[in-house]
Order: sequence, then C-alpha cells, then structure tokens
Amino acid sequence: MEGYPFTHRVRVRFAETDAQGIAHHASFVVWLEEARVAYLAAFAGGYRAIRERGIEAFTTGVHLEYGRAAVFDDVLEIGVRCGELRGARFRFDYQVERDGMRIVRGWTMHATVDAATHRPTRVPEWFVADVLRAEGTTPSGPPAPASPSPSSRP
Amino acid sequence: MEGYPFTHRVRVRFAETDAQGIAHHASFVVWLEEARVAYLAAFAGGYRAIRERGIEAFTTGVHLEYGRAAVFDDVLEIGVRCGELRGARFRFDYQVERDGMRIVRGWTMHATVDAATHRPTRVPEWFVADVLRAEGTTPSGPPAPASPSPSSRP
Amino acid sequence: MEGYPFTHRVRVRFAETDAQGIAHHASFVVWLEEARVAYLAAFAGGYRAIRERGIEAFTTGVHLEYGRAAVFDDVLEIGVRCGELRGARFRFDYQVERDGMRIVRGWTMHATVDAATHRPTRVPEWFVADVLRAEGTTPSGPPAPASPSPSSRP
Amino acid sequence: MEGYPFTHRVRVRFAETDAQGIAHHASFVVWLEEARVAYLAAFAGGYRAIRERGIEAFTTGVHLEYGRAAVFDDVLEIGVRCGELRGARFRFDYQVERDGMRIVRGWTMHATVDAATHRPTRVPEWFVADVLRAEGTTPSGPPAPASPSPSSRP
Repeated sequence: MEGYPFTHRVRVRFAETDAQGIAHHASFVVWLEEARVAYLAAFAGGYRAIRERGIEAFTTGVHLEYGRAAVFDDVLEIGVRCGELRGARFRFDYQVERDGMRIVRGWTMHATVDAATHRPTRVPEWFVADVLRAEGTTPSGPPAPASPSPSSRP
Repeated sequence: MEGYPFTHRVRVRFAETDAQGIAHHASFVVWLEEARVAYLAAFAGGYRAIRERGIEAFTTGVHLEYGRAAVFDDVLEIGVRCGELRGARFRFDYQVERDGMRIVRGWTMHATVDAATHRPTRVPEWFVADVLRAEGTTPSGPPAPASPSPSSRP
Repeated sequence: MEGYPFTHRVRVRFAETDAQGIAHHASFVVWLEEARVAYLAAFAGGYRAIRERGIEAFTTGVHLEYGRAAVFDDVLEIGVRCGELRGARFRFDYQVERDGMRIVRGWTMHATVDAATHRPTRVPEWFVADVLRAEGTTPSGPPAPASPSPSSRP
Repeated sequence: MEGYPFTHRVRVRFAETDAQGIAHHASFVVWLEEARVAYLAAFAGGYRAIRERGIEAFTTGVHLEYGRAAVFDDVLEIGVRCGELRGARFRFDYQVERDGMRIVRGWTMHATVDAATHRPTRVPEWFVADVLRAEGTTPSGPPAPASPSPSSRP
C-alpha cells in the first residue's frame, strides 16, 4: 500500500458485525492492534521480544476515521507505518482498504514503561533501529527524520 | 427466579449484536461470567477475595442452549446457582430470562488451582461454606447433599 | 460530573481485561457506546426511537486518550455530553472517571442517514431540541450556541 | 487432523487474552464460528450462499471443554467436522490443537430457518450433499450414515 511499508490482512468475522449489518466500529481497534503486532513481528523481533526484555508498551491514544463500512467476510488490507518514535512514545498510522479503496484510517499512540516499575522508559535502541530500517530511514541520518515522519498528527 | 438464589441483570449492548440483528451467541458466555462474578461478590467475598488468597479459578467447560434470541437493548435476567461443588471443581447453572420467559440456559464448569504452582487445589472451606449458605444448604447436613445438587450434569 | 449533563456507570468485566492485567483499550469504545445509548434513552427518546423513525446513525470517528488504566471490577463513571450538532453530523464528548479521577477522555463523531437510502439526512428537529434541552441550551437562543459547544474539536 | 476433514488456523490476538494471562474462554466460541464459516466456504458455497438463498442458520447450542490454556500469539489449529445433519438441524464438532496437542474440544448446534418467516426449514439438499461430500460420505449410501456420525452427542 502506497506509503506503508507493511500490510496485514484480516477477514471480518460474523461476531464482529452488529445489528446495522456492518462491522462494529470497535472491531477496527482490535484489527489495528493485530496489524501492529504483525508489524512488530516482521520488523522488531515481535511484541513478545519487547515484553521479554522487561518493557511493556501501553496504548495511550486511539484515533479512527470511518469513511465506509465493512461487512461480514470482507477481506481488509491494513497498511501500517510507524509515524513517530521518540523518547518513551511512538505512534502508528494505519489505513484500512478493501479492494484498493480506503474505508478507514487512523493512528494509535503508545508509551513504553519498565515492566517492573511501570515508570516511563525510553523506547529501546534496537527497537528504534529495527523500526527505522523497516521504514526505510537510517538512524544515522540528519536529525529531523530521526522520527520517521514529522510529528504532524493527522 | 424459581430455583435460583441469585439473579443478575444485563442490558444487551449494541456492540453485542450481530448482522442477524440479534445478540451474538458468544455474548452470553460473557454475560454468564458477569453474573457469576456478581454471585461471588454477593456470597463468597468476591472473585478478588479468591484471587487474593492465592487461588485461581479456571473455566473448564461451557454449555449453552439457546431457545430464543435477544436483541439490542433487551434487559435480561440471569439466574445463577452453584450446581456442584466438590474437591477442586465446581459448576454453575444459569437461566437467562426476558420478561419472565426463558431464552437461554446453560452451565459452566470451573477448577481451582494454586495461583503460584497452577496445581489443582481444593475449593477452600470458606468458599464452600459461603456458597452452601447462599444455596440454602448447610455443610453440616448429611453427606449426600453436601454438593447442592446431585452431580447429574444437564 | 462537572461539565457533563449525564453520567453512566459501567463495571469492568473480566472478559474485558487483557494479559497486561488491565481493561483492554478497545473496551472503552464499547463503553462509550453504551454510555451514548443511555444518554439518548434519557434525553432523546432512545436509540430505538431514532431507528424507528427511519434514521440510522453511523459512527464516523472515534478518538480516545488514555491517561490511567482500569482493572477488573473497577466501577467507572462516564460523563457524556453532546459536543456538536449540525446538519447531518453530531459529536459526543466523554470523560471516564474512577473515584473522581479522570482516566480516559475522548469523543465520537456520528452521521445520520436515511435508513432506506443510506443518504445523509439532517439530524431530526426533535432530536436536536431534546439534546439541546439536555445540554441546558435552548434552540431559540442566539445562533452561535445553536451547536452546544463551538466546533473546536478537542 | 485425524478425524477432521477440515482445519482452520487462528492466531490468538492480544485483545482476546484476559487478566489471567490466557485466552479468555469466550474467545473460543468466536474462533469456532470463524472455523465453521471457513468450512462452509470450502465445502458448501459459503455462509453467504446460504443466506442468499433465503435461509438463516441460528446457533442453538454451544458446548466447550477446556483442557489447556492458550496464550497470546499462539497459533491454533481448529479441526471441524459436521457431526450430524438432519431435518432442520445440524451439529459441528471441533478440536482445537496447539503444536499437535489438543487444548479444547466442543460442538455447536444449529437450526435452519426461512429468512423471511423465521420458521424452521429443512437444511437444503445441496447443502447436505456438499457437506456429505466433504465428510467423505455419499448421500446415496445406506440410510444409517445419511447423518455423517451417529447422533451420540459428546
């Protein structure tokens, strides 16, 4: 998907629909998480690796804009990119498409904390390096692009 | 509700419906759990109390028979009773009614384990005593009814 | 709750927690919907009334900021207010508190469509009137406050 | 999987875990449905095909026995077979395995109704034929195996 280094596919479950006959809007929050987990598995050793190194990542923000509805059995492509990464925070951007047409877009914010103390801790170097590599940016680049995209939140 | 020492009320959420226009059948599993938690809060010091004493209760079986559908915004009454309680296992029986008419019935099986070792451990005495009191049976009674109802699984 | 004409209470279900030991972030999306439905039941004849008059309201946006975690069995108060209401769109603002302390805030956007044609249709007059009354504003007031709060999205 | 003509794979989502650190027991109900839908897509023209021919299939029973827990990111294999098929009712049997080891088994019961009248209607001939073919039985066989397995419910 244009602008997204990674895509993940989900199929709408019947349990995820509602009485309006469409996928319930909360289902997308779960799908974005699944797509994010798949991104991390592909590029940063996986979510388990992060937890095993004593770091927990909490979700601190969710933002979704629904343009079109999805229905039962639809196959959806979810584009994922790391939109920001600095200090103890990172943001993922998403675009959900069906047959090449965008139906939903959004972002999620996350904070990393020490699993033992639950105090904020910087996103680990190896994680930053892996993600920047995935995003096609090098950490040795000029300061500005150190965060893959400017922090202009959509 | 006739035959149930405890009832719990839920209102069907829109997110719990599906594209058939009814409450999705998996929603009932969650509601039975909520009703069971409320029963334990009323009679046995609560689920938290159980966990705080180093015991975990796992769900080892779920059985549901759906007679009628529930729809969005329906108010459902869930009757709960402890149907069996012996050793490291207990069973809860449920009846879900709307306006006095049964729509679903079922049961769940549970096993208690030591939270640290995860090995089966007997249901604690105080829990048995509290539950039997709730069910209107006394633990000092004759052996047979020590489990509130015979172990004839529905 | 200060600034909110309506509050709704939910108790965190065990099924709504996750392996981080906290309420999963998607659970809040479902709770906001339940709170919104309760608001509409209290002030605007209920969601069913809206649907029965041939209007469907779709959720077109969700925005959540998580400040603190909720855990199993927490009782949460959800403040709801209609933050904007014009043409075929309306927005609800929310604040989720536990013991008087804010843990989450957010908003949802909605669009009304004709149930038969699925074309955008203005929010009905009676709905606007009911909501404005709930919000303590009168539709006969000066133009500016016709939408309860300026459209400055949080 | 031995004894199952069809298997479907799911990966445990983080949202599907609970505060015990395992997949919540209600998640399996949703996974069985996903597996059943995949079975129908493979063998009987798909669930959509059934609905498009004016037939609704309701779930009338769910039975699950949990032997071992699943955790986040586990890949589970779900074996599906049609265990019974007669008149307006059919049953599916399931076995859920992780790395070849059974963790859960269960069954679901279903009833077919006319989508317009909601009155019970026989499972259509083409559906029966497709399913029997999938199960390796022919409808032209002797009467007894006309239902793929005897109606001995587990």
